[in-house]
Amino acid sequence: MRVALVQFRPEFGDISGNIDKAFSMMENTEADLFVLPELCFSGYTFTSKAEALGLSESAKDGFTLNQIKAFSLKKDAGMIYGFPEKDGDSLYNTCQFISPDGETRIYRKLHLYYYEKEWFTPGNLPLSVFEFRGGKLGMMICFDWIFPEVCRTLALKGAQLICHPANLVMSFCQQSMITRCLENAVFSVTANRIGSEKRGEFDFEFTGASRIVSPKGEILYQGSIDKDEIGVADINFEDSINKKVNFKNDLWADRRPEFYRMEPNGEE
Amino acid sequence: MRVALVQFRPEFGDISGNIDKAFSMMENTEADLFVLPELCFSGYTFTSKAEALGLSESAKDGFTLNQIKAFSLKKDAGMIYGFPEKDGDSLYNTCQFISPDGETRIYRKLHLYYYEKEWFTPGNLPLSVFEFRGGKLGMMICFDWIFPEVCRTLALKGAQLICHPANLVMSFCQQSMITRCLENAVFSVTANRIGSEKRGEFDFEFTGASRIVSPKGEILYQGSIDKDEIGVADINFEDSINKKVNFKNDLWADRRPEFYRMEPNGEE
Repeated sequence: MRVALVQFRPEFGDISGNIDKAFSMMENTEADLFVLPELCFSGYTFTSKAEALGLSESAKDGFTLNQIKAFSLKKDAGMIYGFPEKDGDSLYNTCQFISPDGETRIYRKLHLYYYEKEWFTPGNLPLSVFEFRGGKLGMMICFDWIFPEVCRTLALKGAQLICHPANLVMSFCQQSMITRCLENAVFSVTANRIGSEKRGEFDFEFTGASRIVSPKGEILYQGSIDKDEIGVADINFEDSINKKVNFKNDLWADRRPEFYRMEPNGEE
Repeated sequence: MRVALVQFRPEFGDISGNIDKAFSMMENTEADLFVLPELCFSGYTFTSKAEALGLSESAKDGFTLNQIKAFSLKKDAGMIYGFPEKDGDSLYNTCQFISPDGETRIYRKLHLYYYEKEWFTPGNLPLSVFEFRGGKLGMMICFDWIFPEVCRTLALKGAQLICHPANLVMSFCQQSMITRCLENAVFSVTANRIGSEKRGEFDFEFTGASRIVSPKGEILYQGSIDKDEIGVADINFEDSINKKVNFKNDLWADRRPEFYRMEPNGEE
């Protein structure tokens, strides 16, 4: 399967213009799956909850969803993108998967970063895995990367490709995705945005360098830090089924969960 | 506190000669704690269990233990080193901590690598944490690094410095220790050996590049890939108590264990 990441600089608040920009970038690329950044059509740097709400949409119906559904059908490709999701009174930092046959899935960011905590409600849905074109996909968003349990949980549930929309302001994540892929024997695609957003008291520089990594820690695509670009890699899901490190070691069979702890508990 | 790693090339089977070599390397270095590689006096590449047994010692009494105890007292420094531990009929890949006042602690490698499974019994003791000179230390050995639960468990139990004797044949670990330190906000010291061992059907090249890493992912000491050397860094345990990423994010408080899974369980 061919996976593509879309790295670009959205204009804050211009949902329609940003969708058009992304569509024109993807127009001439053939891929089975396009992964776009976190909050990639709304922009990232809200200065109030009211502003975030004003750019939010429902995961079940809305301008962005309908545009992406039509594009997915036209391209015969799956799409994953981040958006501010309104559900009743709650606002989530969400990413949505859409397949050409209209299937949709959402993931709500479990670990909110910095001022996101002021606008968004922490995710309330399980880390889940779903099939697409012969493989199993999992989704996480940006800062989720720093919690090893996120990729681990997705991988233990069977994910073979971790789809990772991001708006990274630090550069540790890109390098650490090699560790995430090695320790779980999974593929990952981190679609990060570029550019800066200076709004209110905030002044964020986003770090680009989107990448696709293999279960062996190989960098299959490495993006620039400052250019709009599409990155493509052909991946074989089979490479993530085998958890063997060598003929004596298997990343799953070798685990010793009876010695692992999930909660702080002092010394024994 | 000042931590030192001792990177060197042992001669297979020459326990006494290797101890002398390590002592002469450490002679003129002042440090609070010296961390040496895995199986650093016996050598690594056993070709049978009988051979490993022939080089094994008790964790409670033995030539190596007594030599290291005397050296620890003379240097007024803690020591951590790896050795093949005989306990009854079992043989473990163990590392031992010795303090100048004679306190000892052992850790038995939980995740055995490759043919180690033929000679050693998997570790049967909890990942534990102990105090030394104002900080809390945890120990893991070599291949343990690839299981994120090991550092996570030690850190959740309060470890501020992960002491990591190693005989690495790949080079992913050294880079990944940055991720391990960042995700847990801990220090780490990876003491790796250098040189090659061609014995029986095996031909291992060890990768050196020992390093000391801070809770912010900074490399405080970077060793060469092929030279005997001592690496030193001054670390402040306080830097590992604070798990804050910024004033809104805390690596411990932000965890969502209710969404994490420890066991494979398919999709929900």
